[in-house]
Amino acid sequence: MKAIRKLEKGVGAEYVDLPTPEIAADEVLVKVEATALCKSDVDVYNWTPVVQGLTLPLPITMGHEFMGEVVETGAYVKGLAAGDRVVGETHIPCNHCHVCLAGHPHICANNMGVIGRNIDGSFAEYIKIPEIAAIKMDLPAEQGAVMEPMATALHGLTKGEVSGKTIAVLGCGTIGLMSIELAKIMGAAKVIALSTTDEKLAKASQLGADRVVNGKTEDLVEVIMEETKGQGVDLALEYTGSQTVINQMILSMRTAGTCVMIGMIDKPLTLENYMLKAVYKELVITGIFGRRIYQTWELLKAILETGRIDVSQYVCDTFALADFEKAIKASKSVPGRIILKP
Amino acid sequence: MKAIRKLEKGVGAEYVDLPTPEIAADEVLVKVEATALCKSDVDVYNWTPVVQGLTLPLPITMGHEFMGEVVETGAYVKGLAAGDRVVGETHIPCNHCHVCLAGHPHICANNMGVIGRNIDGSFAEYIKIPEIAAIKMDLPAEQGAVMEPMATALHGLTKGEVSGKTIAVLGCGTIGLMSIELAKIMGAAKVIALSTTDEKLAKASQLGADRVVNGKTEDLVEVIMEETKGQGVDLALEYTGSQTVINQMILSMRTAGTCVMIGMIDKPLTLENYMLKAVYKELVITGIFGRRIYQTWELLKAILETGRIDVSQYVCDTFALADFEKAIKASKSVPGRIILKP
Amino acid sequence: MKAIRKLEKGVGAEYVDLPTPEIAADEVLVKVEATALCKSDVDVYNWTPVVQGLTLPLPITMGHEFMGEVVETGAYVKGLAAGDRVVGETHIPCNHCHVCLAGHPHICANNMGVIGRNIDGSFAEYIKIPEIAAIKMDLPAEQGAVMEPMATALHGLTKGEVSGKTIAVLGCGTIGLMSIELAKIMGAAKVIALSTTDEKLAKASQLGADRVVNGKTEDLVEVIMEETKGQGVDLALEYTGSQTVINQMILSMRTAGTCVMIGMIDKPLTLENYMLKAVYKELVITGIFGRRIYQTWELLKAILETGRIDVSQYVCDTFALADFEKAIKASKSVPGRIILKP
Amino acid sequence: MKAIRKLEKGVGAEYVDLPTPEIAADEVLVKVEATALCKSDVDVYNWTPVVQGLTLPLPITMGHEFMGEVVETGAYVKGLAAGDRVVGETHIPCNHCHVCLAGHPHICANNMGVIGRNIDGSFAEYIKIPEIAAIKMDLPAEQGAVMEPMATALHGLTKGEVSGKTIAVLGCGTIGLMSIELAKIMGAAKVIALSTTDEKLAKASQLGADRVVNGKTEDLVEVIMEETKGQGVDLALEYTGSQTVINQMILSMRTAGTCVMIGMIDKPLTLENYMLKAVYKELVITGIFGRRIYQTWELLKAILETGRIDVSQYVCDTFALADFEKAIKASKSVPGRIILKP
Repeated sequence: MKAIRKLEKGVGAEYVDLPTPEIAADEVLVKVEATALCKSDVDVYNWTPVVQGLTLPLPITMGHEFMGEVVETGAYVKGLAAGDRVVGETHIPCNHCHVCLAGHPHICANNMGVIGRNIDGSFAEYIKIPEIAAIKMDLPAEQGAVMEPMATALHGLTKGEVSGKTIAVLGCGTIGLMSIELAKIMGAAKVIALSTTDEKLAKASQLGADRVVNGKTEDLVEVIMEETKGQGVDLALEYTGSQTVINQMILSMRTAGTCVMIGMIDKPLTLENYMLKAVYKELVITGIFGRRIYQTWELLKAILETGRIDVSQYVCDTFALADFEKAIKASKSVPGRIILKP
Repeated sequence: MKAIRKLEKGVGAEYVDLPTPEIAADEVLVKVEATALCKSDVDVYNWTPVVQGLTLPLPITMGHEFMGEVVETGAYVKGLAAGDRVVGETHIPCNHCHVCLAGHPHICANNMGVIGRNIDGSFAEYIKIPEIAAIKMDLPAEQGAVMEPMATALHGLTKGEVSGKTIAVLGCGTIGLMSIELAKIMGAAKVIALSTTDEKLAKASQLGADRVVNGKTEDLVEVIMEETKGQGVDLALEYTGSQTVINQMILSMRTAGTCVMIGMIDKPLTLENYMLKAVYKELVITGIFGRRIYQTWELLKAILETGRIDVSQYVCDTFALADFEKAIKASKSVPGRIILKP
Repeated sequence: MKAIRKLEKGVGAEYVDLPTPEIAADEVLVKVEATALCKSDVDVYNWTPVVQGLTLPLPITMGHEFMGEVVETGAYVKGLAAGDRVVGETHIPCNHCHVCLAGHPHICANNMGVIGRNIDGSFAEYIKIPEIAAIKMDLPAEQGAVMEPMATALHGLTKGEVSGKTIAVLGCGTIGLMSIELAKIMGAAKVIALSTTDEKLAKASQLGADRVVNGKTEDLVEVIMEETKGQGVDLALEYTGSQTVINQMILSMRTAGTCVMIGMIDKPLTLENYMLKAVYKELVITGIFGRRIYQTWELLKAILETGRIDVSQYVCDTFALADFEKAIKASKSVPGRIILKP
Repeated sequence: MKAIRKLEKGVGAEYVDLPTPEIAADEVLVKVEATALCKSDVDVYNWTPVVQGLTLPLPITMGHEFMGEVVETGAYVKGLAAGDRVVGETHIPCNHCHVCLAGHPHICANNMGVIGRNIDGSFAEYIKIPEIAAIKMDLPAEQGAVMEPMATALHGLTKGEVSGKTIAVLGCGTIGLMSIELAKIMGAAKVIALSTTDEKLAKASQLGADRVVNGKTEDLVEVIMEETKGQGVDLALEYTGSQTVINQMILSMRTAGTCVMIGMIDKPLTLENYMLKAVYKELVITGIFGRRIYQTWELLKAILETGRIDVSQYVCDTFALADFEKAIKASKSVPGRIILKP
């Protein structure tokens, strides 16, 4: 089969031939229908400092957001059959460590498998995954390929209360944009979105943001205080990873509010007014990694069933898998995901 | 009456004569039986950088931890009568702002009164407080004077789960020490305590710490990992305000654990491995300020009624109010509070 | 002033002259602009068995849902001034008992005052209430008069999760109808509403119910199972007080779901399959009384500010206070509230 | 191998020869070291009305509380090896239905397997169970055999708050007794225990109950009100299944308290004062079935590691498996479990 492989350190990746994976008894083989290009895939391609810090076992097939059809099932697979269409859960828990057993398998403490990071990924014609990482869904292929990031957006929102609350979405990458629409559907009273890209701000408005803030020309703290009558937001979702934005966020929170950190922070983080503006206000600062297995997926399915989300809004363009380098270029500033089709 | 007053900026305070306070309709006048010397009072005396950053309205009577007897009640006071013995809640909420109405009056967002910081305090023969800041309790005076910090310790613990959990208490000042005993009474499986002072470590052991760590000679992260079989603690209470200890704490947490920040941080805070060790582990980092009004007080009363706490353990010495400067010297390294008696 | 008074046991009430109330230092005098007729007021008029069981101190001015203008404030009132427009919180907590101090003042355990039940109510030109029972709002008078029941509906919903969940509203009185609209605004995936009155079912549909069930002609359990693919609803709000409906509700719940009991149950309640269908499924069955003081009010204000609710939908007709007996007749089957104007 | 089998409807069971079970790829074969006699096993033996209502597939090997040693593992078993000692989780979830995926596998909605009820049990020399039902523990055999009920007791307690709370344990069967000790270890301020058997009341006291109530000679409501200064208990664990006790419980609760239903209720349940005493007080009434998989087990292990529980207290006597009818007779009123050894 064909696949995009990261062969060695440094910039780049190759479109190569590989044997189709052989599955174990608890695994399924999935024919990839569509796979999405996440910013972290671009980072792997570019071999950024953060990626250098991770210990990727090279060579490795890239990619982790996908939808496909089950074409083969291991002897021990009970809940899936050939023909089932599935999306992939990127995190593969051990289900034996204390963290898994205590109800947090998505952040398993015991050498968790992460698709495309330490096990072969979805930029390929076929991918093998354990049954426990296959989520049955029935959507057009391109839309299924963005379910994994949409579940991440949803997981972030469930760390705070949403109904009747004022929410800041800081950064309008795909997951940020999805957070805006999900927050409104989940009953948020007001959503304020930050970006420095006009195209993304326009999309944010279209998805329901009540106020968009251009970080280049407007002062985030000032706008939030004006929009909230000086009280700040109840919940902030931080997608930029920028120290400046993070410090602005802390100044923008309502007393007892919740900050959810998601954006990649690639160096030590200095908080300026942490005591006075976070401790004394009893802010909760937490982070997310992935999605709850499977609580977030169940909630996402229920929300999708309402028919209130048009998932196609998050699909910006489609390329053949062979054209992945064009796709990387195209992905730079589009408001949503680029899809690769094997 | 006699009182300790901070008259002007700079080191020092004065033992002066003042008129006895006149109460408003919603206030009570309390004859102070005993008042405790908090580290923050010492900071006000020494006019430390943090205190300089606060806008204390000078002159002001110092002190905020006390027990006394109600000797006069305002026309509108309904729940208290002369003769009632009370301890003081330091935080005086407005009860009208959104934060108060949303159930967090102890961190009122609307010019909250803080005894000894922006309204006259308890280092005096008499103090006037609103009825809503008077908590009826029946304890020996010296023990009553340490109820306010004990409620702070309890509030910190209630930010996480305690029963069956492993807990790190980082810093063994009075509130840290109280946290150790409270955690054990509340069902903690294991408590690990950090200090750099032998006397405090000895007291920590005596109060029930299962393992004490001398920060001068032992590596906190190493000890915690050893004591928790490499998993880390479920809950950490940070009392040192030290950036080094805070970074060690983050490395010492179990996945999905909770960090409660209480210690005074007096400059920007740099977190070294925040992304990998906190975000990816979905740690919750929060802070506390004061105590829940009145949920924490009700829980504290219930725990005291069990008779399992000997509060006298936290009273290290008693001085006359006039001798407050001797008291300040004595307070430096004792494992508990110094009491002043007017 | 004029007022509707329940003078003695038995059916009826009188339109009488009364002295305007004199306020205490912590009270405000409110000129009633509009007051709504709750089913419980009709019960008091009709002196039903449930009402006979309560110990109403007669004579008493009826009514508890209202909006008005503050015309006089007691010496100790701090947060209100003449001219402020307010709605009333029916429950007057003591703020001194354990239940109040533990954060549940709306269900105060210490002889709580309840407007129109043990203290004079709002079917009058003027009503006096403590400042703590006056909620500042700015709405047309008739709409303000239905804020108290709308807050009850909201309190019921906050006992479970709403976003992405399937919810049954059993009974379409005014509060039931409000629950439907609030649930949708708060992000419910699907709302199923039960009534036996066509007019109410039509209103339920118009307010957003995804499926309405006519209890006379359809089987509730069957419909719910069909609508939920055999899984049952996540949250049920029980407004009928009917033993039959309550037993159907238990059969209609998803495993681990939540039932909120609100409807008046006027005799012993027999549950048929409690062990197998509730205990073994770990259902949570709880009840509500009133609204959280003031958390529910703060949330309601935030939701109203979104502009998504047209409160006028719940106002069915308006009568002069003198015509209260006509109003009682009119209230029988209308889908919403009848308003009285003094 | 030898096993106790329920062969047909009606009173009785047989000690028979059976082939040793053959395991599937995801199962382990366990040599039973010790198995405990639960009251529900006695009910199966006696073919009580409740048991008649269940659809036991006969013949079936009885028993579900056990400890044993893994002697064989299926091809797909990853986390266990021959020689591992395990206790059994009675509930075998499907791990595919919504209830499982939403985080409640212990109450799986999809034909959950229940050991000894619809799949062969532990009153045998060998039992086969899926790997997911095997909990590794290292305890003396008799003590391991009572871990399953101890986890049930713990699960019940985690439905409410325990630290600093007042708790009623209604019924002193083995699980009730375990609840008393666990509640104290978890920080309960006061535990009040009800039984009608002197021997059990004596054991309750010995395990830490602060007050025991003999239901034959004392009035439960009266005692609880006296012990709680008229406020009632925060949390009640109902183990009797008696309608009388359940109605007394409702009258004994603090406003906003929690009732956990566990005892077998074998007919329709009539609640006398549900509206006034439960709805108006916003009581939470819930039930439990089994234990959380695996959160409860992880918490139990942490508590056991503290060394504060002497599990041998719950082992009253030991019989050979062949003598199971003697064991049934002996189990009638002992304060704890009878153990069978194959």
